Amino acid sequence: MPLDERPATKLKIVVLGSAAGGGYPQWNCRCPVCDLAWQRDRRVSPRTQSSLAVTADGDHWFLLNASPDLRQQIQSTTSLWPANGRDSPIRGVFLTNGDVDHVAGLLSLRERQAFAVIGTPATLKLIEANSIFRVLDPAYVRMQPLRDGVEIDAGFGLKATPFFVPGKVPLHEESGTVSIGGVGESTLGLEIRSAGARLIYIPGCAKMSGEILRRASGADLLLFDGTTFTDDEMVRLGLSQKTAWRMGHMAITGDEGSLRAFAEVQVGRKVYTHINNTNPILIEGSSERRVVETAGWEVAYDGMEIAL
Amino acid sequence: MPLDERPATKLKIVVLGSAAGGGYPQWNCRCPVCDLAWQRDRRVSPRTQSSLAVTADGDHWFLLNASPDLRQQIQSTTSLWPANGRDSPIRGVFLTNGDVDHVAGLLSLRERQAFAVIGTPATLKLIEANSIFRVLDPAYVRMQPLRDGVEIDAGFGLKATPFFVPGKVPLHEESGTVSIGGVGESTLGLEIRSAGARLIYIPGCAKMSGEILRRASGADLLLFDGTTFTDDEMVRLGLSQKTAWRMGHMAITGDEGSLRAFAEVQVGRKVYTHINNTNPILIEGSSERRVVETAGWEVAYDGMEIAL
Repeated sequence: MPLDERPATKLKIVVLGSAAGGGYPQWNCRCPVCDLAWQRDRRVSPRTQSSLAVTADGDHWFLLNASPDLRQQIQSTTSLWPANGRDSPIRGVFLTNGDVDHVAGLLSLRERQAFAVIGTPATLKLIEANSIFRVLDPAYVRMQPLRDGVEIDAGFGLKATPFFVPGKVPLHEESGTVSIGGVGESTLGLEIRSAGARLIYIPGCAKMSGEILRRASGADLLLFDGTTFTDDEMVRLGLSQKTAWRMGHMAITGDEGSLRAFAEVQVGRKVYTHINNTNPILIEGSSERRVVETAGWEVAYDGMEIAL
Repeated sequence: MPLDERPATKLKIVVLGSAAGGGYPQWNCRCPVCDLAWQRDRRVSPRTQSSLAVTADGDHWFLLNASPDLRQQIQSTTSLWPANGRDSPIRGVFLTNGDVDHVAGLLSLRERQAFAVIGTPATLKLIEANSIFRVLDPAYVRMQPLRDGVEIDAGFGLKATPFFVPGKVPLHEESGTVSIGGVGESTLGLEIRSAGARLIYIPGCAKMSGEILRRASGADLLLFDGTTFTDDEMVRLGLSQKTAWRMGHMAITGDEGSLRAFAEVQVGRKVYTHINNTNPILIEGSSERRVVETAGWEVAYDGMEIAL
């Protein structure tokens, strides 16, 4: 249709990083899927760690999580380049949990730039308890706490409602017996809204809940935890003793997997992100990739842009 | 000369990152030098943050500092790729101070890989006091303290002697009146030796000292603090209220600058690294670049390889 008859974009999303913690390939890993990336096999694309950028007005951006690769991600994304003087278009960072792959990028946002760090009291407390984050000058960087189910107006046309999802505390906060799958301040989903467009972002989730199904139903876009294809894939590869569940993630397949859980949910587009280096959906044309695509899911990649 | 008559390499150095904290260009900066990088001007090359990789045996590598860009730096450096299974060739990380641009990369070295983190007790204490670094599993990662002037055998043919240089505590540890230029555990130089080859690495230094001159004299290679060209360049650009001195760095020029301080010192090769985004020596052909080159200095760039 002619340009002036196209519906205006209400919400624009850029996938800055689509991999789970460690990225793809992972620095010390030659598992079969990583091996393809080290060999520069054309069926796979390297991926940086989990983060989105979203904008409602096209000019001011919010990050959903700040990955350790954030500096590289900004360099690769012209929309996030500074305009003049000291002036980044980034106005805030939402944190869905306190994992390294979601918070370490804050260390790359120093230097006299005003923005908000937005997360649960538990996640903000974790940032404040680690003195290294004092490089973020409180004269510029504002900490904004989130409450379960309470919408905030982030400004610049963007509204966000956080909701607790089943998860676990970050790895670096684990001690003794670790509780998995509890619903609390440790792990968030985010509902992002602008002018009627609605994104649901849940990069980490240990199991399905009624709240998640309710929020996702009718959304224009769902970006969901695609960490592993099978619950035990890291164990079978001999890379770890941990299942996906132990890491606080639900696998894509299986009785308790996300494919089955979302099978009947009406969503505009369903996209897997936060994809672990061991997950064979990273390989174009693989049987596992076909399984998710046949079920109506897309697989996120770095630089993927979605306009709602 | 024919290949078999060439002297064997005793020490190989790869500059993983040649920029100061924040890298070049800096995420929110459009100063005149950054502006060239955002415009993709061919006189400048983007640079990641301060780190070297060194090897004595050609197979096992040590990092001198772990920058926030370490994951990207490993991806760009084939020598640092894993061989098979979980097996990185990186065997240790020396830390010259506790600045974010030198320690945050440790967060990218998780996942069941044995290596040593080597620094002063003060710097190791800082790592241990920040719970986020608990992602480094103590079952695999060993903390090794350094003492002023005491050589350690790092293994794989590489020996290192740390020596305290004038500096200051890391930004995130500053409180009240900050002491600059003191000699203590906060800031190290490293003398790296292998089979008679000798590298002196001092990425941060507030002022010259007799100890530095003594160590540098006769070295095959000096990699030195090239943060700023003039002491007040960040102030004049309106980017900061801090001089280079206030940040714990001696400028290149001026009566107290590094050009003058090293003018009479005999060194095989002298290379500036840890270069701030405001420093015009980043621009090929600039008058400032010519000043340092005429004085016999080179300007480090990412991927620079030096064999001794």
